[in-house]
Amino acid sequence: MSVKEAMETRRSIRKYAQEPIPREDIEEMLRLASLAPSAWNIQPWRFIVVMDPEKKRELHLAANRHPQVKSAPVVIILTSDMEDAIAHIEECIHPDMPEEGKQWLKETIPKVFGAQSAEQRGQWGVAQSNIVLGYLLIAIRSLGYDSSPMYGYNPERIRQLFDLPSHVQIPAIIAIGKRAEEGHSHHRHPLHRIVRYV
Amino acid sequence: MSVKEAMETRRSIRKYAQEPIPREDIEEMLRLASLAPSAWNIQPWRFIVVMDPEKKRELHLAANRHPQVKSAPVVIILTSDMEDAIAHIEECIHPDMPEEGKQWLKETIPKVFGAQSAEQRGQWGVAQSNIVLGYLLIAIRSLGYDSSPMYGYNPERIRQLFDLPSHVQIPAIIAIGKRAEEGHSHHRHPLHRIVRYV
Repeated sequence: MSVKEAMETRRSIRKYAQEPIPREDIEEMLRLASLAPSAWNIQPWRFIVVMDPEKKRELHLAANRHPQVKSAPVVIILTSDMEDAIAHIEECIHPDMPEEGKQWLKETIPKVFGAQSAEQRGQWGVAQSNIVLGYLLIAIRSLGYDSSPMYGYNPERIRQLFDLPSHVQIPAIIAIGKRAEEGHSHHRHPLHRIVRYV
Repeated sequence: MSVKEAMETRRSIRKYAQEPIPREDIEEMLRLASLAPSAWNIQPWRFIVVMDPEKKRELHLAANRHPQVKSAPVVIILTSDMEDAIAHIEECIHPDMPEEGKQWLKETIPKVFGAQSAEQRGQWGVAQSNIVLGYLLIAIRSLGYDSSPMYGYNPERIRQLFDLPSHVQIPAIIAIGKRAEEGHSHHRHPLHRIVRYV
């Protein structure tokens, strides 16, 4: 699917067809999403793909009973784990980089983030993970599926449900499936309201 | 261009061909990007499209002299202005919504954000604007252009240069043009490192 069509036809969908999503489609969505850029290549994003009906039922309760959590065959929890990322910084370093550059990054990145509070680092990771969220929603649509990103949930309860440490941020949860309703048309600012040319 | 191709071929590019970008291409990039979802439909993103050579020269100095700011024919400053968004909340409300729902939103949204500090609201707007950043990078690529999102700059100096109030956040600046170098291949975490199925 073209980028134009994917962006124009994406809607937030609450009612989904009751059919499972093949594993290879989920993997392709996540592979494409993970091509999003990341400052320092840190890629703090981690995904939990929830398909198990019992877990989905518990997630529904933790997510303000959003109907789309119940209706969608798959719900992805987008998390950001900066502590894990920084503890394994060597994984983020491009193998083609000269040895000197690698060494510099291995020392500098932990130093830069070490000077911040865990909360500041956490916020930084959330911002990065939202870039991936933009990618993911387009990737989902390009494979013929629909989605609904949600913010209303109890993060502490989700952490408990999925055994996540307290520093792990949860930027969004995303319901995924095939649409069983049309959804609302876009209502966006006209460009002249939000763009300035200099 | 397909979503797959756009995501796979996007690279961070520092050297650009010295050719201007037609205005209609810039408008199409921004139109597509602005189709990104936004919680409460708040759309806090505002774009400054910098093409003027003198302004670009000043921006280069404010942006740690990133070479791509000099090289790219266009640099977009992605800003987030939650105070403007909330002061004009009626613009965000879908015209098809029933009157009762419109009234509820007009009262509730300012109340919810009014209970937060300007800084908390600002952070929220930054997260939202990063979704648009993901969209924008894909939209740019889909029109045959390349980009480089940057974080290293002096936000205060950029605010001064473009007469932005101090509450305006600057999530990223983005160099745009046609690539004059190949850029680095992607080095991303394998999926099994970042995905858990439950």
